[in-house]
Amino acid sequence: MRAEILTIGDELCRGEIVDTNSSWLAAKLWDLSITTRWMTSCLDDAADITAAVTLAVSRADLVLCSGGLGPTEDDLTVDVLAALVGSDPVIDEPHRAKMEAWLAKRVVDPATPASAGALHLGPSAPPAGIMQIQLRQVRVPRGARVHPNPMGLAPGFEVAVRGVPVICMPGVPRELHAIWDAGLEARLREARGDTAEQIARRIYRVFGRGESQISQVCRGIVDDVPGASIHYQVKFPETLVKIVIRDRDRAAAEARLAAVDPEIRRRLPGHLYGDGDENLIGKVVRRLIENQRTLATAESCTGGMIGELVTSIAGSSKAYVGGAITYANAEKVRQLGVSPATLDAHGAVSEETVREMAAGARERFGADLTVAVSGVAGPDGGTPDKPVGTVWLAIASGQGVTTKKITWPGTRDQVRTLASWWALRMIDEANV
Amino acid sequence: MRAEILTIGDELCRGEIVDTNSSWLAAKLWDLSITTRWMTSCLDDAADITAAVTLAVSRADLVLCSGGLGPTEDDLTVDVLAALVGSDPVIDEPHRAKMEAWLAKRVVDPATPASAGALHLGPSAPPAGIMQIQLRQVRVPRGARVHPNPMGLAPGFEVAVRGVPVICMPGVPRELHAIWDAGLEARLREARGDTAEQIARRIYRVFGRGESQISQVCRGIVDDVPGASIHYQVKFPETLVKIVIRDRDRAAAEARLAAVDPEIRRRLPGHLYGDGDENLIGKVVRRLIENQRTLATAESCTGGMIGELVTSIAGSSKAYVGGAITYANAEKVRQLGVSPATLDAHGAVSEETVREMAAGARERFGADLTVAVSGVAGPDGGTPDKPVGTVWLAIASGQGVTTKKITWPGTRDQVRTLASWWALRMIDEANV
Repeated sequence: MRAEILTIGDELCRGEIVDTNSSWLAAKLWDLSITTRWMTSCLDDAADITAAVTLAVSRADLVLCSGGLGPTEDDLTVDVLAALVGSDPVIDEPHRAKMEAWLAKRVVDPATPASAGALHLGPSAPPAGIMQIQLRQVRVPRGARVHPNPMGLAPGFEVAVRGVPVICMPGVPRELHAIWDAGLEARLREARGDTAEQIARRIYRVFGRGESQISQVCRGIVDDVPGASIHYQVKFPETLVKIVIRDRDRAAAEARLAAVDPEIRRRLPGHLYGDGDENLIGKVVRRLIENQRTLATAESCTGGMIGELVTSIAGSSKAYVGGAITYANAEKVRQLGVSPATLDAHGAVSEETVREMAAGARERFGADLTVAVSGVAGPDGGTPDKPVGTVWLAIASGQGVTTKKITWPGTRDQVRTLASWWALRMIDEANV
Repeated sequence: MRAEILTIGDELCRGEIVDTNSSWLAAKLWDLSITTRWMTSCLDDAADITAAVTLAVSRADLVLCSGGLGPTEDDLTVDVLAALVGSDPVIDEPHRAKMEAWLAKRVVDPATPASAGALHLGPSAPPAGIMQIQLRQVRVPRGARVHPNPMGLAPGFEVAVRGVPVICMPGVPRELHAIWDAGLEARLREARGDTAEQIARRIYRVFGRGESQISQVCRGIVDDVPGASIHYQVKFPETLVKIVIRDRDRAAAEARLAAVDPEIRRRLPGHLYGDGDENLIGKVVRRLIENQRTLATAESCTGGMIGELVTSIAGSSKAYVGGAITYANAEKVRQLGVSPATLDAHGAVSEETVREMAAGARERFGADLTVAVSGVAGPDGGTPDKPVGTVWLAIASGQGVTTKKITWPGTRDQVRTLASWWALRMIDEANV
């Protein structure tokens, strides 16, 4: 089964927003064994949308569209699709009722600093009383199958153009995802048919090796496994390794996946830190809470990034005490008790300094684990001895202090992100 | 002049990466008065690439392609384009020489934690000694105009297919941007012709109002200005307002832009904080340095994000002293001297607490300005009195302490980002 994804909107073709819907849908389709062969973006123009849909149904078995379902005159998708199937736009009553209920309870709070209306409820959030234009966005082509939108006003819908299913959704990613989850995925599984291949898949998360090294290490791992493929995706600073096995029998696919699992773990010792959706940040915080350990941070070049990453996880207050951002050397002395003599003799970016930072933080914060980072993030400040990308890390625990040096000549942002992830990895290793 | 952008790669159509090249190119083209009418992505498949280019040249005056220029057998763009123009692939000697020089000095450092080769030099970085396959990526169609690649191995090139210029570039964004800057933009200005419209534009940066409120306030502002249009782009938490004026005479366009400028500033008092490429973070750090002021931060719910944002700017060490991340209440007392009685009476999320945090930080860090934040980031922890999204901020300076409360019921990440930006805005207002 081959799909085409069509995203509609002037803002896409002017480059004002990056189209994330296409890749999101393509990944979801691929998981259903549906190959996306084409992805097209076009302007809010009736002739162009008509041409794009006509072309798509001529070369694909399934067409997914996003965009052009809002309330304004620019939003043409319903009209174009109705015309293509020789129908006309009609109000979808359930979505009209939902919109009326929503408008009735909407309160605009003028004290809200950023417009909650615009940002929380979507760009189409209206002042009350302009129902007529609002009604445009609850229309669907007469006879269309409606795909309910649990997160917004405009319904998704499906029509058949020359026998090919064309499914239209709003362009707001949150709403598109909700429509997918609410029923569209099930609908596509049904369209794909039960006779199709089943897929077993596992995503492994790897940190500390680059994509080329990982792919070299994993070479040949699935060569003799029927229906298996391996894929790599760089999500800096980690790399995802995805093993996919296709078979008409799901149990057989799962069994072959389970057989590959120990080998892939054996080949990436230390670097493969988990599988599934949970990344290193989530894993570290979850295990700290499970093990009832507390953490504090002492940051120089990362400037608060480690604390920010840890506290991005809801519930992290159960484990994270706090941190010291010691950007100036005087603060390393004042907040963490680093000795001025150490700073003089070895500099701020040194094993000796991060050792004292971590140990000093442990004493002052009273945490089970403390991690310290000091480095040259660049672009300036490098020396022949300590070039940009030189970072020292230390972790202090009841077992003493362990240090590590990394050297990675990237951009300022990359150096800081990599240093923060190495700090997380050291916490992960220490928290046993 | 109408353009089509074509991005090539299986990884795009599997949704493994988001296509950022299309929007980047579309924005650049739009700035040159070239309208992107179609953006297409296709698989690494010779028949599909041939079909896509053939279609593109039938409906556009200019085609920009990215992807498929690497060294592997999957990389088919050169072969397809050569076939389309009845030519054959040949080695581009300047790029071959550059590759040889690069291979000669390449050293793989096994101690490097993440593969600098893979990440720094692009996914095609080879082990030395496989020159034959490497040569694939310095090929161009015979007779093509070469667009040098200052950041990578594979040259960009241009051929005319049925009289329409088709320009191919590697898919690595860094390389594509470098090719654009090195000469492609100048080439397209020339292709567009001097007789075309000139564009005057200014980007205004607005924080503290949502897109719908901003667009309401700006309504009608360019209605009577010939050739003018206004565009909004949400880059959470800020919104960019872009005024564009087209005229054959650049001076006339610039004059009309200058005439609109005071009016747009008048309509967004306080919220319009700058124009151009510098965002609020950059502005705050630059002005602190210019005014020789020092800053320290005291963060609870943002967990280090304000420090991280400030230190994301190179050179911030001239102004930023450091910070205290006081996630636990005990740390608010220990690090900042907040009174336990205040915490008991008013709670951690209160005007009284942030006031003491900011004042305590100023005393301890000895900084000219200190900013403090405490809030309920969610998703848990909200109460009827202090729902999720309630954040108190305080700024302390020689002029005393000023506080502010924001309430914005977003996701955890949104609440923290918004709180950090409000902190930056308070610094911006205080640093006068």
